[in-house]
Parts: sequence; C-alpha cells; structure tokens
Amino acid sequence: MTKGTDEQHNEKMRKRKAAQDRIVATKTVEKGLLIVHTGAGKGKSTAAFGMAVRAVGHGMKVGVIQFVKGAMTTGEKAVFDRFPDEIEFRAMGDGFTWDTQNRAADMASARRAWDEVKRMIGDPSYQMVVADELNIVLRYDYLPLDEVLDVLRGRPEMTHVVVTGRNAPDPLIEAADLVTEMTLVKHPFRDQGVKAQAGVEF
Amino acid sequence: MTKGTDEQHNEKMRKRKAAQDRIVATKTVEKGLLIVHTGAGKGKSTAAFGMAVRAVGHGMKVGVIQFVKGAMTTGEKAVFDRFPDEIEFRAMGDGFTWDTQNRAADMASARRAWDEVKRMIGDPSYQMVVADELNIVLRYDYLPLDEVLDVLRGRPEMTHVVVTGRNAPDPLIEAADLVTEMTLVKHPFRDQGVKAQAGVEF
Repeated sequence: MTKGTDEQHNEKMRKRKAAQDRIVATKTVEKGLLIVHTGAGKGKSTAAFGMAVRAVGHGMKVGVIQFVKGAMTTGEKAVFDRFPDEIEFRAMGDGFTWDTQNRAADMASARRAWDEVKRMIGDPSYQMVVADELNIVLRYDYLPLDEVLDVLRGRPEMTHVVVTGRNAPDPLIEAADLVTEMTLVKHPFRDQGVKAQAGVEF
Repeated sequence: MTKGTDEQHNEKMRKRKAAQDRIVATKTVEKGLLIVHTGAGKGKSTAAFGMAVRAVGHGMKVGVIQFVKGAMTTGEKAVFDRFPDEIEFRAMGDGFTWDTQNRAADMASARRAWDEVKRMIGDPSYQMVVADELNIVLRYDYLPLDEVLDVLRGRPEMTHVVVTGRNAPDPLIEAADLVTEMTLVKHPFRDQGVKAQAGVEF
C-alpha cells in the first residue's frame, strides 16, 4: 500500500464522516419505537433478547412476553433470572406450541399472552416491551389484527415495543418505525446433519 | 370458526409435527458452528450479543472481541460487567472508528483485535467467541482473508464462533455453517427524523 493510496483513503473517510455528521444533526426526535423482526431466518428472537438485556444495561425496565413456547428457552431464562428487578419474563406459550393440535386452546393462550402485553404497554414504568412471536399468532388469526395495531399505535410516547416472528402482516410493517428482515442464507439443520445446540439454537 | 375447520387445522398440525420429528431425528451431529450475521440491516451485533448472553445462561465461557468501536456500546458493556467470570469483553476498536482517518492505525488496531480472537479460539475453555464487525475489517483488507479463514476453520471442535458485519466475503460464507442476512426494511433514521436512542441503537 503506497502512501498516496493511504491519503486518498483517509480523505474519502474524512468526507464520509462529515456527510454523516450533517445527517445525524438533522435527527432530533426521541420517541418510543415500534420495532419488528421478521423473515424466515434466524436471529429474530435472539436480537430482541439482546435488545431487552441491553435496555437493562441502560437502567430500563423491560417486559418480555413469549407467545410461543420454545422461542426463548433455558439459556434466556437463566439470564433473565439474573435480572429479577429489571426484566419481567412471562412464558405464556404453554398452550401454544409449534406442534399445536388444539386451535381453541391456542387462541385462549394467545389471548392470555396479549392481555399481559397490553398491561405492560399500558404501564409507562415499562420502557421496553417484547412481544416474542406475536407475528405467528397473528398469522393464524388467533388475535384480531385491528385490536393489536390499536394497542401498539397507542403505546406511551417513550415506550419501545419489539415484535418478532416470521410473516409480519403488512399493516404491522406499515405501523412500525424499524423493520428488519432476517433471511436464511445457510443453515446447518437443512444443509448438514447438525442438531440444535445449547447457546446457538436455544 | 366451525368445529370441522378446527379439526382440519389440528390434523394438519399433527402431520406437520410428525414430519418435523422425522427430520429432527436424522440430525445427530454436535459441533461448534461458524456463524455469520451479515447484511445491511440492523440486529447483526445485537443477535450476536444475545447469543453470547444466552450461552452464559448455559454456563459457557464466552469471549467477545469488538473490532469497531461503537458497534457494542454502553448498554452491552453494563451487562457484560454483570458477568465478569463468564464473558470476557474486549473493545479493541479504539483505533478503528467509523470515521477513521488513519489507515495504518486501523490496520494495527485490526491486528491487535485479531490476535485476541486467535488467542480465544485457540483456548478451548472459551466455548463461544464473537468477532464483532470482523467483516468490516476484512472488507477494507486490513487483515489477510486466508489467515482469518485458516484460524476459523481450525477452531476446536466444540467452539462456536460468531462473526458479524455487513459485506461478509464469499469465502467466509462458504466456510460458515449458519449464515443469516439482516435486511433493512424500514429505518427511522432514514425515513423519519428520529435520533439514535438508548436501548434501541446502543
């Protein structure tokens, strides 16, 4: 690498930084965000879990409601137990599992979980509420989408809400401030004979 | 919803569960995975952070090396400080920032961070090693890709390594077991006047 190339690179970086600073200076609004993690890839719940723990690092109180049993499991549970005052974790999905065989029970389970989410969103002492796998429940029409959207849109001004699950409905994406799609590029479950492992899958 | 529809749904779910069980039964390999989070969307570092904390929930020892200052910040730091025996966090990116203006210093910083990653991967007491934003460093050719791939491929059999950052090089994707691309669907920074906020952005 010649010195000339280094200087060209450094000059390019100086200009990029100046442009970024100008953009950031125009961003002044602070508000609670509606965040959606969707897509068929991995990391939707894991990133939400990371946000919840990080929010605790900022001294926030966080509520986490699990709509589907198993999306967050023993690893998460053990960590949440270390933050009993900061994270309120409710695994509500006992009646709803990926191998569900009872639609009426699933709907009742979804309703109980949603009632908890509503309670947390309605209580401004929670600064972040994670509705883990809510999208799955919406996909199956286990909850009325309009009711869900009304509550999410009507959240307190500074409350962040994180909704996860594949197949987020379009109106939810419309309502959201920040939407990330996790796309599966390569997966050992599909491509190899690798089984689910602690720390990675659960 | 009629009873007939419920029963059709339940029967479909029973069949799906049986098919899933047959697939899972064929997966028997347990091994340390090379995991890549890439793409221009959010959640790459956050999901890696979530995996690190979750691994701790399973009693694992985890090393986290930050190649670029700021990708993980005060919120993460405060959490890592709660797990001093389980998570070893090294913010190595002081010399490398997004507004970098000194290529030689960046390369030295990348080398120092990589030496730490190599040390952790070479020590089987670490069951997970996170190389946060390593892809950025590779993108700028601050480290030789071949050397990086050799170390990643030669990791101990049960060590998980998580590499994050946009623009993962193709050979790294080839070498990886699990690759997720985070795609930006909607972002308040771009679409609205919302500034970066604690718990969400950092």
